[in-house]
Amino acid sequence: MVITIYGDSISGNCLKVKWTADHLGVAYRWLETGVLNGETRTAEFLAMNPAGQVPLVLLADGRPLAQSNAIILHLAEGSPLIPADAYERARMLEWMFWEQYSHEPYVAVARFQVRYLEKPVGDLEPRIVERGLQALQRLEGGLATSSFLVGEQPSLADVALVAYTRVAGEGGFDLDAFPRVQAWIARVEAALGIA
Amino acid sequence: MVITIYGDSISGNCLKVKWTADHLGVAYRWLETGVLNGETRTAEFLAMNPAGQVPLVLLADGRPLAQSNAIILHLAEGSPLIPADAYERARMLEWMFWEQYSHEPYVAVARFQVRYLEKPVGDLEPRIVERGLQALQRLEGGLATSSFLVGEQPSLADVALVAYTRVAGEGGFDLDAFPRVQAWIARVEAALGIA
Repeated sequence: MVITIYGDSISGNCLKVKWTADHLGVAYRWLETGVLNGETRTAEFLAMNPAGQVPLVLLADGRPLAQSNAIILHLAEGSPLIPADAYERARMLEWMFWEQYSHEPYVAVARFQVRYLEKPVGDLEPRIVERGLQALQRLEGGLATSSFLVGEQPSLADVALVAYTRVAGEGGFDLDAFPRVQAWIARVEAALGIA
Repeated sequence: MVITIYGDSISGNCLKVKWTADHLGVAYRWLETGVLNGETRTAEFLAMNPAGQVPLVLLADGRPLAQSNAIILHLAEGSPLIPADAYERARMLEWMFWEQYSHEPYVAVARFQVRYLEKPVGDLEPRIVERGLQALQRLEGGLATSSFLVGEQPSLADVALVAYTRVAGEGGFDLDAFPRVQAWIARVEAALGIA
């Protein structure tokens, strides 16, 4: 048995799981599950994930696991994508929790509204734009002294943060203003083979 | 050297760190750092945590660590608050990421606005109330078959989720509608000695 990934290919959260599995050589089958057409809200899906969100993984033994960052932490246990040093591991987790709280709700939401709901960039809530820019600025600062978010090797922090940062432009954010972020995106894409 | 916790006592995110340290017997000094009076936005503080958020911990060697859930995962490494079983550990992380994405932004924000900004409950954004109720309902469901969120022993998932759930009433949420959640709060408070 391989794992099953319920994912929507337009979702960076889902792609994190795909990239991690591909990078680590974890065998899976991908079941395309559309957010926009209600496939995450069916009774069948809610029985597997009451939160009604993708990605959802069924492990090889059939047990479910949700939340993109929890899934990639599980898949990558013991791999070089998780630093062996306790402090570096903690910093990786710091970035991953920050991503879900302070980055995704702005950078990903802006991109979703503009690209998939066809909202003009000028109609985005000012709070979303402002906090998205703050998140990108924070990333720019975090890359001032290292090639990746935690030191010189890619970790799950990079996987988690690159997912929506690389498509931030689709939400109206100008990545030219963040040159370290741009260079980092290219490095992470190359490391993961997703360029 | 002991660790230093920069925290605001009104913040559930900060109290998670205090409770975990207390429960595990980790020595610390607590530096009260007010969110409402701008103490997390001073140049000195931003130099330690560019995200401008508490809790922030300086480890015994002076290195900083932010994000409440990353901090408690670091403090509790190797303790019974983190399940030894890989799947249970993954489910714990699933709850912790869900907390920051789908619970805290609604349950904690409603409580902050009502209690500390003195906004009438009726003036809360409907989206905040609706999603807060969804989060509490999801918790109620998650407690249908076990005493704690991951099995029969308290884990960091309970620490993370109880922090704002126990004060949800301060944001206008009626916990009487969630009897399993109420009983679980009492169990977690007893387990952590915070009743």
